[in-house]
Amino acid sequence: MIGAGNLATNLTLALKNKGYKIVSVYSKTIKSAKILAEKLNCNYTNKIDSVKKYDLAIISINDDAINKISKKIIGPAVHTSGFKNIDVLENNIKGVLYPIQTFDININNDFKNIPICIESNNKEFEKQLMKIAKDISKNVLLLNSDERKYLHLSAVISCNFSNLLYQFSEEICNKKNISFDLLKPLILQTAKKIDLITPKDAQTGPAKRRDHITIKQHLELLKDDNEKLEIYDLITKSILKRL
Amino acid sequence: MIGAGNLATNLTLALKNKGYKIVSVYSKTIKSAKILAEKLNCNYTNKIDSVKKYDLAIISINDDAINKISKKIIGPAVHTSGFKNIDVLENNIKGVLYPIQTFDININNDFKNIPICIESNNKEFEKQLMKIAKDISKNVLLLNSDERKYLHLSAVISCNFSNLLYQFSEEICNKKNISFDLLKPLILQTAKKIDLITPKDAQTGPAKRRDHITIKQHLELLKDDNEKLEIYDLITKSILKRL
Repeated sequence: MIGAGNLATNLTLALKNKGYKIVSVYSKTIKSAKILAEKLNCNYTNKIDSVKKYDLAIISINDDAINKISKKIIGPAVHTSGFKNIDVLENNIKGVLYPIQTFDININNDFKNIPICIESNNKEFEKQLMKIAKDISKNVLLLNSDERKYLHLSAVISCNFSNLLYQFSEEICNKKNISFDLLKPLILQTAKKIDLITPKDAQTGPAKRRDHITIKQHLELLKDDNEKLEIYDLITKSILKRL
Repeated sequence: MIGAGNLATNLTLALKNKGYKIVSVYSKTIKSAKILAEKLNCNYTNKIDSVKKYDLAIISINDDAINKISKKIIGPAVHTSGFKNIDVLENNIKGVLYPIQTFDININNDFKNIPICIESNNKEFEKQLMKIAKDISKNVLLLNSDERKYLHLSAVISCNFSNLLYQFSEEICNKKNISFDLLKPLILQTAKKIDLITPKDAQTGPAKRRDHITIKQHLELLKDDNEKLEIYDLITKSILKRL
């Protein structure tokens, strides 16, 4: 396992639970490698060349560091990036294993329901990757680098950007001494609804009702917060455009 | 019940389940009144003056129509708007009962976990409203009109705006023939996470990792979609600002 961050931690724990043996954890920060290795009961290192025997190298590190590290891998390698092309790997036998999820070191994810995108330059290796992925997830699919790029963009918009909006809401609540907890059932229901109906059908609120007076007054409440004001204005226009 | 929309439907069904008697449903659209009245097994009308005997009028209609209809109410009235001041009601005894949730006529909500904000101009009536609210929800609180206004703004940002982002993602997926279903576990997990950690701590993705190369390439993918491009750019800047 090359990397010891959020994704690396969740992925290796899921693999270990299914009986896969993690030989060693590499991280440029030895402390991070150690923390994960202790969870996996395996070796760890910050010297990539020191690990000699393994069947597969899984690279879960920052996008821009993948290419450099791939040159040091003996044998087959996969990266787990949603965005990087498979060809960023310089190995003869290579692949991608991209789980579509947001991971945190300290929050355990049930991999069973996480879709995993697979790609490879080698049919036999592709089969092996499919098997590994299917051992931990019930939703595995083949996706090429171009499609995966757009899926990753969509994931960033749905997940990271929604999370920023949660943060905006929390900031507004904090400023007025209102508990942000009050919004949690609403946030959860908003995410759950789109499993039943499309986002278009799920839309509610002032813009959906074309309630221009409330929209104007919301903008007035944000008049000293140009950052939120601009985003409020743009998103409201986008909702109105789609009615 | 004055109104027969998403909130009116969910609220009256919750009240009926707890033994409250809905006398009649009013809607300016008789068909909507009938649909809800059939679910409640009660009368319905599109003539507000035709209903003479009731203990409480609940007004769940568009914000801008509340004031006018309140003048036609005999006795105590509440509105359910997140944004409108209590004084939009012209009744002697008046109040607000605002459930913080996104409602759909055809999706049943479990009211038990929905926070309800209560306000009244009359202590005795306030007690009665608290009792009603506590009969259907385990999370009831007093909140004045000014605080509620900001809470409502936060709710719109967390809920309606996130939903628009889901719609953006779906549009990108559709264009590339990728199933939007692949993103649903991610969207759900994003919402669930903030019940465990703050939105700030929950953030992941390219901006959080300061991965400027991926950000630049995402913007490149959106170069022909100025609407999404502008919002991508603004939200990414906001995430970066908060690191």
